[in-house]
Amino acid sequence: MAFSALDHQHMARALQLAERGLTTTSPNPRVGCVIARDDQRLGEGWHQRAGQAHAEVYALRAAGDRARGATAYVTLEPCAHHGRTPPCADALIAAGVARVVVAMTDPNPLVAGQGLDRIVHAGIVAEVGLLGDEAHELNIGFVSRMTRARPWVRLKAASTLDGKTALANGISQWITGPAARTDGHRWRARACAILTGFGTVRADDPQLTVRDVPCDRQPLRVLVDARFEVSPTARLFNGDPVLVVIAEPNPEKAAALAGRNVDTLLLPNAHGKVDLPLLLTALASRGINELHVEAGFKLNGSLLREGCVDELLLYTAPMLVGDAAQGLFNLPELSTLTQAHRLTWRDIRQVGNDTRWIGRFQRGG
Amino acid sequence: MAFSALDHQHMARALQLAERGLTTTSPNPRVGCVIARDDQRLGEGWHQRAGQAHAEVYALRAAGDRARGATAYVTLEPCAHHGRTPPCADALIAAGVARVVVAMTDPNPLVAGQGLDRIVHAGIVAEVGLLGDEAHELNIGFVSRMTRARPWVRLKAASTLDGKTALANGISQWITGPAARTDGHRWRARACAILTGFGTVRADDPQLTVRDVPCDRQPLRVLVDARFEVSPTARLFNGDPVLVVIAEPNPEKAAALAGRNVDTLLLPNAHGKVDLPLLLTALASRGINELHVEAGFKLNGSLLREGCVDELLLYTAPMLVGDAAQGLFNLPELSTLTQAHRLTWRDIRQVGNDTRWIGRFQRGG
Repeated sequence: MAFSALDHQHMARALQLAERGLTTTSPNPRVGCVIARDDQRLGEGWHQRAGQAHAEVYALRAAGDRARGATAYVTLEPCAHHGRTPPCADALIAAGVARVVVAMTDPNPLVAGQGLDRIVHAGIVAEVGLLGDEAHELNIGFVSRMTRARPWVRLKAASTLDGKTALANGISQWITGPAARTDGHRWRARACAILTGFGTVRADDPQLTVRDVPCDRQPLRVLVDARFEVSPTARLFNGDPVLVVIAEPNPEKAAALAGRNVDTLLLPNAHGKVDLPLLLTALASRGINELHVEAGFKLNGSLLREGCVDELLLYTAPMLVGDAAQGLFNLPELSTLTQAHRLTWRDIRQVGNDTRWIGRFQRGG
Repeated sequence: MAFSALDHQHMARALQLAERGLTTTSPNPRVGCVIARDDQRLGEGWHQRAGQAHAEVYALRAAGDRARGATAYVTLEPCAHHGRTPPCADALIAAGVARVVVAMTDPNPLVAGQGLDRIVHAGIVAEVGLLGDEAHELNIGFVSRMTRARPWVRLKAASTLDGKTALANGISQWITGPAARTDGHRWRARACAILTGFGTVRADDPQLTVRDVPCDRQPLRVLVDARFEVSPTARLFNGDPVLVVIAEPNPEKAAALAGRNVDTLLLPNAHGKVDLPLLLTALASRGINELHVEAGFKLNGSLLREGCVDELLLYTAPMLVGDAAQGLFNLPELSTLTQAHRLTWRDIRQVGNDTRWIGRFQRGG
């Protein structure tokens, strides 16, 4: 089937609405809906927060009786199940829409297609795939969690042109400029959780909160700290939730952190380190769609080696500091270039005086 | 004075003509000329090769009698001296042009303004500065040689995203892709000389010729080899001229290279290495305007530390290889970020799958 220019306009608008939920819907996906007839938009809605109404409900409410015979544009297949809200497929049927266009089916393979089936069986025209790539990108974390049982992992780093993140003495403030740092907070804000390691907390004592951009909720902070060495006075423990992931128990440290909104998770691997792939599974089961990593040389290297990074968000500052400084990724020595970790670039632009480079790791067959 | 839109059009055309001499005019500057009346271009010319006519001569020849009362647009102040050709200022006066517009004055402080003076004294309107920045960029090497008595030094490097130019075992072919390599040859072609070090010749045995793009003449190859260790069988010695810059004489090596179109230059500094700043002076005195550097970690670092690099041309491949691999610049450990070598970026773009980043080093006051 071919979609018309008007179809594209309405779905693009629905995607725009969906994006309004970028920092608020988790663990739910970002979804937008437009009810339209020809070039008239009769109702608009977007999902705002888990537990609140879905996008379709808001749009149908706004359209009222005019929804009868109209087309509904939804960025994600309407749900068919009774969750915290009744099924949206039923709401669309009840409203009497004549046609439903969805950007992509539900990524959960267990329920994919059920909402559309229900709509089609009610005699309504259903069409799928309009601006599907854009819809997929918008919910890349939700899709990852549903299809791979792990979050979409975006590793953020800031380096010099010669690939250094800090001087040998640890100084890293500031390699990149204020525009890059604010941009970094935008990416923190859309994540469900921010992951770092004990080395970074010891060296920089970061809060890892979203401060430079508006954000209604703080992402969960996740600290990988195999031997539970973190100081209870670290600025990370500011009252907002923290998950400390350890490889060996430490009852005294746990006691010192009691009542501080700190959860611990014991996930040792065979080498006495934190089992990182298992940690991703655990985070997915806690509803983490997008995981934002801001860690150091060692943890970055471990995550990369263990196949736990999907996307690299790299800010490069226009300076050179030489090889004595600290590098980006602790990786074993390679003997051939075929062993390199390769990426496919997606976006490159200037952010202030720095360059922002976004790429995705290529996976072996 | 305000230049008109037509003035801009004609000067832009003159710059375009000048650029046709990008790889052929050295050691002369690239110069273009348009003779025009209103929107009619009556004659065009550009300087093609040292010893041949200047741009103005070709343009006047094409315009013929129609040059009388017309405007001459020249990208560089017309010369006032008798060199291998008679002064162009005189030719413009003799042709009876009514107005001369030049993009920039002669960068040689000893002769700057003399051509324009001669024109003004002949009663011709002379105006300066139209598209002056563009004209300056086109001849950045010639300007550097005239004003600083050293070439414009552009250092080309190809690295991974984590700033590595080769694996620890020396493998570097190929980090960047074919499009980046061809682009690199375009930059080689416009240079008057290409500089490398003994380490690179030993490791990669490069020819350092222009092959992937058309080029009428090969740039001089300059090899920094303090102890004159290079093998006479190196591919560099292909018959085209090579200058080997040494810090200690080696008569046997010199004898082995006799008749191979190889010149040697003894330029020791106090540490028994090649005196790099002095080398730049020596190259300028040999008419080298733009010097293209393709060297390794050590020589790159020495050039940078000794303030001998003006511009960085960096191709970054979308891969990570880890810290065991070889870095870009051998620099001493820094204790504060204020000691970093900072650049101002000028251009950033994708070249094939790689990113090309061009920046210029900031100089301290």
